[in-house]
Amino acid sequence: MNAVELIRKKRDGGTLTDDEVRWFVDAYTRGVVADEQASALLMAVFFRGMAPPELATWTAAMIASGERLDLAPVGRPTVDKHSTGGVGDKISLPLVPLVAACGAAVPQLSGRGLGHTGGTLDKLEAIAGVRVALSNDEVVEQLRSIGCVICAAGPDLAPADRKLYALRDVTATVESIPLIASSIMSKKIAEGTESLVLDVKSGAGAFMRDPADARRLAETMVEIGNGNGVRTVALLTTMDVPLGRTAGNGLEIAETLDVLGGGGPADVVEVTLALAREMLALAGVDGADPAAALADGSARARWDDLVRAQGGDPTAPLPEAPERHDVLAPRSGWLTRLDALGVGVAAWRLGAGRARKEDPVSPTAGVVWHATVGDRVEEGQPLLTLHADDPSRFAAGLDALDGAFEIGDVEPEPVVRVLDRIA
Amino acid sequence: MNAVELIRKKRDGGTLTDDEVRWFVDAYTRGVVADEQASALLMAVFFRGMAPPELATWTAAMIASGERLDLAPVGRPTVDKHSTGGVGDKISLPLVPLVAACGAAVPQLSGRGLGHTGGTLDKLEAIAGVRVALSNDEVVEQLRSIGCVICAAGPDLAPADRKLYALRDVTATVESIPLIASSIMSKKIAEGTESLVLDVKSGAGAFMRDPADARRLAETMVEIGNGNGVRTVALLTTMDVPLGRTAGNGLEIAETLDVLGGGGPADVVEVTLALAREMLALAGVDGADPAAALADGSARARWDDLVRAQGGDPTAPLPEAPERHDVLAPRSGWLTRLDALGVGVAAWRLGAGRARKEDPVSPTAGVVWHATVGDRVEEGQPLLTLHADDPSRFAAGLDALDGAFEIGDVEPEPVVRVLDRIA
Repeated sequence: MNAVELIRKKRDGGTLTDDEVRWFVDAYTRGVVADEQASALLMAVFFRGMAPPELATWTAAMIASGERLDLAPVGRPTVDKHSTGGVGDKISLPLVPLVAACGAAVPQLSGRGLGHTGGTLDKLEAIAGVRVALSNDEVVEQLRSIGCVICAAGPDLAPADRKLYALRDVTATVESIPLIASSIMSKKIAEGTESLVLDVKSGAGAFMRDPADARRLAETMVEIGNGNGVRTVALLTTMDVPLGRTAGNGLEIAETLDVLGGGGPADVVEVTLALAREMLALAGVDGADPAAALADGSARARWDDLVRAQGGDPTAPLPEAPERHDVLAPRSGWLTRLDALGVGVAAWRLGAGRARKEDPVSPTAGVVWHATVGDRVEEGQPLLTLHADDPSRFAAGLDALDGAFEIGDVEPEPVVRVLDRIA
Repeated sequence: MNAVELIRKKRDGGTLTDDEVRWFVDAYTRGVVADEQASALLMAVFFRGMAPPELATWTAAMIASGERLDLAPVGRPTVDKHSTGGVGDKISLPLVPLVAACGAAVPQLSGRGLGHTGGTLDKLEAIAGVRVALSNDEVVEQLRSIGCVICAAGPDLAPADRKLYALRDVTATVESIPLIASSIMSKKIAEGTESLVLDVKSGAGAFMRDPADARRLAETMVEIGNGNGVRTVALLTTMDVPLGRTAGNGLEIAETLDVLGGGGPADVVEVTLALAREMLALAGVDGADPAAALADGSARARWDDLVRAQGGDPTAPLPEAPERHDVLAPRSGWLTRLDALGVGVAAWRLGAGRARKEDPVSPTAGVVWHATVGDRVEEGQPLLTLHADDPSRFAAGLDALDGAFEIGDVEPEPVVRVLDRIA
């Protein structure tokens, strides 16, 4: 095999054979194919795409670059969830213990935040003492004992993806549907889950702004999952308005506890239950009632088990930001717009997010909005509260929120969260 | 400036500003932008192209990466020629001393062969003792004294091109008209010539097979040249049938001496004179008669000066291959086809060319064809003679010639060499 010939073939619109794909991914992972050759191929893929069987093989080759977890010892049906990310999207946090409480095991191997979208691991680490770096044996044992885990993917899962993602990040080849899909799915399939529900978001605060792109991504991922033996379903959801009422690591843990206590914002509860029902159906768990599991405290009990199992104290108070700044409603009316991107960037600048993957994040910084789209607000009431460790952060946060909301005289249409389902 | 943003801009069809282009080329040459970022940009250029002003700036930035020769001390109008390369294309060898004999100075900074096309420097080195590595001072002094030089471009001319070309070679980004054009023109402009004639070939044995691509390349290069202050004209010529009667280093020197003696194959003489007239016109040399300069020995005298100035003996016999193999005409008739690519690959495999740039070449190996398209041949006459240093080479050479010629009953149309002129 010759890397230049394979790049040229893809560049000119050809479809790489299974052997060619396997050779390229393996040779790149081993360092035989150079970074500059891989980036040229990735840019050619950006322009030419990949045929479905080619992409299935590409993803399988990424999985084969490392180990695939064996979850058979768990003794329960396994099902995971992945979200393409959004502002205020803390859904994994209540969802994972909820689905476990209903009888499936959820191996949630997750990531950290970058830019304006938060990461589940960053949020969980806002709880003092919680560990997210677990060994494979610890993952399997925790799933066996309590049915859920939220931790980092180990370095041996799909190492090709780690290397390819770092390369895409510096070569402007991130925004390619087959490359996004194979990156997500290689890690999810390598973690050993039997089934998977995807939450693919579109809108101002999502990675995919255009719903048509989100649909193509969802279809591509569902095809890869099913082609690699993982039962996969996707929900298409919206991310124009941020989810819930909080964006920020510890703030979203507090909101998670509200949901697990049977309360919490209606939109978070709606999306959590929609995803839980899909997951339980895919896992073949019949007769469970996730709404009841939120109301009766069984989901919260499973959350407490998870926090304890990973080294935290679920009864300890959450840390709070020493500095707060309110944004008041400039007039009375209906909140007609609240821009997810503006809120996400504000939370990031206040300290909740990071610009580079090695940056630290604050456990307490972020944004709370006291009303969401469709709510009635009165002039002078606090509309948003900014939380920060240092008041010098407020100016940048306020700047991001400039123009991010509108108050009007007409009640807006209700926000639709779940657009469609791709199976 | 940020490399990822510039790659993304080009990827999405944007035009880089002058500052962006200059920054990228400079940062890549200095190693601040990584190979994998440059190759991603080059692949994006392959798909998106470059706007004419963007490409002019890109080329100027490549020139600015090194020094630009000052040919003012030469004291004569300067004009050079570049060919995109073909099989049997030894035109530079008679052309350079011919134009010098007519009164212009020709700074022919040339290259080596790769694959099935030969390189002028490899051919010149078939003459024992000739040096092609000259200092800038030697180049200027030789142009001042005898009006011509054929040597390698020094490492300080357009170093960005050297680095970019090596990268393109391993990333399948060679075949891009703006990248080809800027590579050629950056070196030619950096050598300091005031004017330039381009021989842009199309056909089976050329780098550009399609005449429409060759025309676009010619137009692009003429625009870059004139935009950078070098008067530039291009001839579009054909390369379906190899030029002259020889392909191989020393064999082409022998044919050059035939042309400089007032004889030689009609097609070589035709193309040499067409290019010489363009060069003299661009240089503003009026009243010279290049045909006369071939006939009266003045071009040959200038050749002898050049060979002597660069360390060779123009009266010494040329080396000859110890091994020969004739291919006989299988029937009588008109030679209707002689495939330039087949002949070029045969000469390469016999030892005249190289697969990798560090490989040596034979000064004597190659192919002589005793008839060209349009000639009458008789069954059993030698049609081609293969020359090699080792008879084990013949099988591969014959294999390349399999199906490379046809003999028919109808006299074919004459081969057209010069298709058009782009000014």
